[in-house]
Amino acid sequence: MARSVEAIAVGTELLLGQIANTNGQYLAQVLAEHGALHYHQTTVGDNRGRLVDALRLALGRADMVVTIGGLGPTQDDLTKEAVAEVFGRAIVVDEPSWERIVSRFRGRGRPTPNNRRQAEMPEGAVAIENAHGTAPGVLLEAAYPAADAAGAVPRVVICLPGPPNEFRPMVSGFFAAYLERWAAGPDGARTVLQSRSLRIAGMGESQVEHELRDLIDAGENPTIATYAKPGEVEVRLTVRAGSPAEASALLGPVEASVRGRLGPWIYGADEDALGGAVVRELAERGLTLAVAESCTGGLLCQRLTEAPGASAAFLLGAVTYANAAKEAVLGVPADLLAEYGAVSEQAARAMAQGVRRRAGAALGVGITGIAGPEGGSPEKPVGTVFVALASGDGTWCRRLGLGGDRAVIRWRASQDALVAVRRYMLSGPSAFER
Amino acid sequence: MARSVEAIAVGTELLLGQIANTNGQYLAQVLAEHGALHYHQTTVGDNRGRLVDALRLALGRADMVVTIGGLGPTQDDLTKEAVAEVFGRAIVVDEPSWERIVSRFRGRGRPTPNNRRQAEMPEGAVAIENAHGTAPGVLLEAAYPAADAAGAVPRVVICLPGPPNEFRPMVSGFFAAYLERWAAGPDGARTVLQSRSLRIAGMGESQVEHELRDLIDAGENPTIATYAKPGEVEVRLTVRAGSPAEASALLGPVEASVRGRLGPWIYGADEDALGGAVVRELAERGLTLAVAESCTGGLLCQRLTEAPGASAAFLLGAVTYANAAKEAVLGVPADLLAEYGAVSEQAARAMAQGVRRRAGAALGVGITGIAGPEGGSPEKPVGTVFVALASGDGTWCRRLGLGGDRAVIRWRASQDALVAVRRYMLSGPSAFER
Repeated sequence: MARSVEAIAVGTELLLGQIANTNGQYLAQVLAEHGALHYHQTTVGDNRGRLVDALRLALGRADMVVTIGGLGPTQDDLTKEAVAEVFGRAIVVDEPSWERIVSRFRGRGRPTPNNRRQAEMPEGAVAIENAHGTAPGVLLEAAYPAADAAGAVPRVVICLPGPPNEFRPMVSGFFAAYLERWAAGPDGARTVLQSRSLRIAGMGESQVEHELRDLIDAGENPTIATYAKPGEVEVRLTVRAGSPAEASALLGPVEASVRGRLGPWIYGADEDALGGAVVRELAERGLTLAVAESCTGGLLCQRLTEAPGASAAFLLGAVTYANAAKEAVLGVPADLLAEYGAVSEQAARAMAQGVRRRAGAALGVGITGIAGPEGGSPEKPVGTVFVALASGDGTWCRRLGLGGDRAVIRWRASQDALVAVRRYMLSGPSAFER
Repeated sequence: MARSVEAIAVGTELLLGQIANTNGQYLAQVLAEHGALHYHQTTVGDNRGRLVDALRLALGRADMVVTIGGLGPTQDDLTKEAVAEVFGRAIVVDEPSWERIVSRFRGRGRPTPNNRRQAEMPEGAVAIENAHGTAPGVLLEAAYPAADAAGAVPRVVICLPGPPNEFRPMVSGFFAAYLERWAAGPDGARTVLQSRSLRIAGMGESQVEHELRDLIDAGENPTIATYAKPGEVEVRLTVRAGSPAEASALLGPVEASVRGRLGPWIYGADEDALGGAVVRELAERGLTLAVAESCTGGLLCQRLTEAPGASAAFLLGAVTYANAAKEAVLGVPADLLAEYGAVSEQAARAMAQGVRRRAGAALGVGITGIAGPEGGSPEKPVGTVFVALASGDGTWCRRLGLGGDRAVIRWRASQDALVAVRRYMLSGPSAFER
C-alpha cells in the first residue's frame, strides 16, 4: 500500500487572499509523480491553536504531514512550536543551523535574536539545509498515538519554508529524494500516477462526452474525465500503476481509442496551446497565414506567436482599430465601412481578403465585433463578432453571439478564428458548407 | 461578532496539482473585504465520503461553508449530493434552472441527460443563476445539529461552480451582495480589511523600498509592503478597521504620502493594468499611438486593447513577423534589413517611424528582438530586444538584455515599450537623454 501525505499551508496572508497558494500545487505535482496518496490539503492562519488542531487531524489520517510556511523569524511564525506541542517535545536550538545562519549574514548586517528562532527545532528533529534562505526545514520521524488508543503509529512531519524560491528547491531536492524511498511503504508497493490531457477545439463538452460515453463509464484505470474550458474541452486520462513503464503501457491503448473517436478535433496534448498547434499544422502543409483583428486587439496574433517557430507560417497581423487603418493597411473601402459599419459581415470579409492580399498569404482571417462592455446595440449586442476566413477558394464568414465579459468574448472570438483555420486545413471549403 | 466562513475546494485535479486553486484566493479576498472571518480552507478530491467528512468538520466550526467546484454534469461531480446527505435532504430538480439550461442550449446542440443533473439541488435550497455556464450555484440556509447535541445552529451552505469564468462573476455578484448583509452577524460588529495596491513601472524594487523606507518601518495600520512583479513593483497598503469608512479614512493619508514620494512612477492602483493606463493617459493628452511588433507578436497590442476604450488613442498595430511584411506595411527598406538584420537598432527605429507614418499617429513604437529559445547568437543572445519610440521630436531606441523564458522576455519587452511611452508623455524628449 502506498503511503499517504497531507499538506497544511500556514499563513494568514493566504486566508486573506494576499498571496496565491502556488506551493500547494507544486507539492501536489511532486506527490503525484512519486505515487504518494494525497487526499487533503488544508490552509490555516498564523494561530497556534488552529495549527495544532490541523496537525492532529492530519496526523490521525495520513502517514506524512507536510507543513508549508511559518518558519520565518517573527513571533507569528509558529509552525515548529505547534509541531513540538503535538508530539510533546521541547524546543531546542540546532547549533549547526545557527552557525549557518550567522555565516549567511556575514558581510550584510547581523542576524537578530529573532533569527536565532529560525535555528530552533522540536527535540529529535533533523534540520534540512536551506540553500536559498535563513530558515532550515525540519524533518521529524516519530511515533504518534493511534486513533484507537491502542499504541502508536509511525509518522513523518516535514516543515518546509513558505517563500517559493526557498520552498521549490527544497521540494525538488531533499523532499523528492526522501519521498522516492519512503512513498512505497515497507512492502515496496506504490502507485505511480500519470495523466495525459487531450485538447479538443470545435466540439462542445456534451458532444465529447457523448462520443466517449462507454469509454468513460468503463474506464477504471485509466479513468477518463472531461473538463470544459473557455472555447475548448479537455479530456484527461489518469492512470495508477506500479511503475512509470506500466503506467505508459496502460495509457497507450486508451489514448488511441479516444483519438480514434475524436480524430482531428484533438488539436494537441498536455500543455499544447491551440495557437501553436495551428501554426505547426500550417507549416506542415506549407501554408501561410495573415490576420486582421479589430475587437480581439492582438490576442489572436499573440496566441499564434506564443510558441517558438511562428515565423514558419505566420506572415502578418494587423490590429486595425481605427477605420482609417482598415482602409490604409487592408484596403477596406471607405464606402463599405460607411454603408455596413465596421462591425459587419462585409467588413470582416474585406479585412480577411485585404490582409491576405497585403501579406501574400495563403489564408487570411478577419475579426470584427463588439467585446464590450460599451458599444452594443439591439441589432448588434455586446458579444456580436464576425469571423471571416479568406482563401484561394473563396471567403466564408460566421456571425457569433458570445457570452461572458470582455476578456472572455475576446478569447472565444480568437478561439473561433483558430478553429476555422483548422477546419479549413482539415476539410477544405466543404468545412463551411451548411 | 463577525461571522465565520470556511471554504472547501472540491476536485481531484487540485490534489494532483493539475490546476491551481486560484478560486480560493479570490474568495479569500472577497471575504476579507467584507469583514467575514476566514480561518480554514480545505481541498478534497471527488470522493463523496471525504467530501461529507469535510463538510461536517466545517459546519461544526463555521457559520457558512462555501464549496467550490463539483457542480458539473458528470458522475464525479458530487458536491450537491454530499450537501444533501449531510443535511438529510432529498435531491430534487429545480425546474426553472432546468428551463434555463435548455434555453442556453438552444441553437447549439441539445442538453444531455447529464445536464439535467446540473438542475438538481438539495430540497429546500435556492438556485443561484449562472450567467456564464450551465451549472447554477446553490444556496441552502438550514439548521445543523450543534456540536454539544443541545439543539441546532443556523448554517449557510453556498455551492459555487469551479470554472473561474463562472466562479468569479458569481462571487463578485450574488455572493458579495449576500455577504454584505450577512457577514456582520446579528449584532453588526465586524472588522473590515481593506487593501490598496499602487502599481509602479520604471523603478526597481530596491529603489521603491529606499524611497519608502521610513514609511514602511513606521507603518502599523495600514502596513506597507513592496512586491516585485515581472517588470513592475507593487506597493500594498493594508488596513484593519471597524467599518469601510474608517478603513478609507486610515488609508487615505498614507496613500497620499506614498503617492507624494513616487509621483508619476505610479501608473495605477489595484487591478489597473499598464496597457490601459497608457491608453488613458494618451487619450487625456489628445495623443495617438501606433505600434509595430516583431518578437512580442501582438502582446503589446493585446495589452493596449485589454481595457475598454482603447480606440480613443490606439490606431494601428502591425505584427510584422516576415521581412516582406515589414517592407510592405511599414515601408522598412529591404536594404536596411539586409545590412543590419531584422533584429537591430536600425530596424526597430524604421519600424517605429514606419508604423507612425502609416497610421498618421503622434507616437510610433517598434519592437524587434529574440524571444528564444532559438535564434540567439554571440552578438545577439536570446533576450536581446530593441525598443524604439518615434515622435514628432525624433526617434529613440533602447537595447535590452532580458532574462527569463520566452513568455517572460516577451512580457518584459512589452513592459519596456509601455514605460517608454509613459516616460515620453511625462517628460517629453528629455526622458531619453543620458
